[in-house]
Amino acid sequence: MKRTHPGELRTIVATNIRRLRHERGVSQQDFALTIEMDRTYFGAVERGERNVSIDNLERIALGLNVPAWQLLKDS
Amino acid sequence: MKRTHPGELRTIVATNIRRLRHERGVSQQDFALTIEMDRTYFGAVERGERNVSIDNLERIALGLNVPAWQLLKDS
Repeated sequence: MKRTHPGELRTIVATNIRRLRHERGVSQQDFALTIEMDRTYFGAVERGERNVSIDNLERIALGLNVPAWQLLKDS
Repeated sequence: MKRTHPGELRTIVATNIRRLRHERGVSQQDFALTIEMDRTYFGAVERGERNVSIDNLERIALGLNVPAWQLLKDS
């Protein structure tokens, strides 16, 4: 599983976050509130538009109750 | 494997990057040069001092030739 071009990882992370949030049946807005993250920012992360940091990844993973590495894994 | 306090992930990532770079027998400076990253910045990432972004994680993972999620996994 080799990365071929920069920026691919963002898309993987965005897709995983959105999928896991959907599985938990929680809206973008409610999830953002729960993890105390600006909902506009969180929406942009879910669209792969933001170069999200490791600290914010950790916070999102905590909110989704998954280990953070799972957010980066191509499924 | 639940995260207990924010910031723990940085330390895991830093430890993994340093370990993998050592395994490849390359200096911090040479590695930073190879992946075209400022070596002072890269050093700080390896000490867990920087809130590294997903794009930079991807670049580091490419340089180490591992999938990026492996950098986040507690070993």
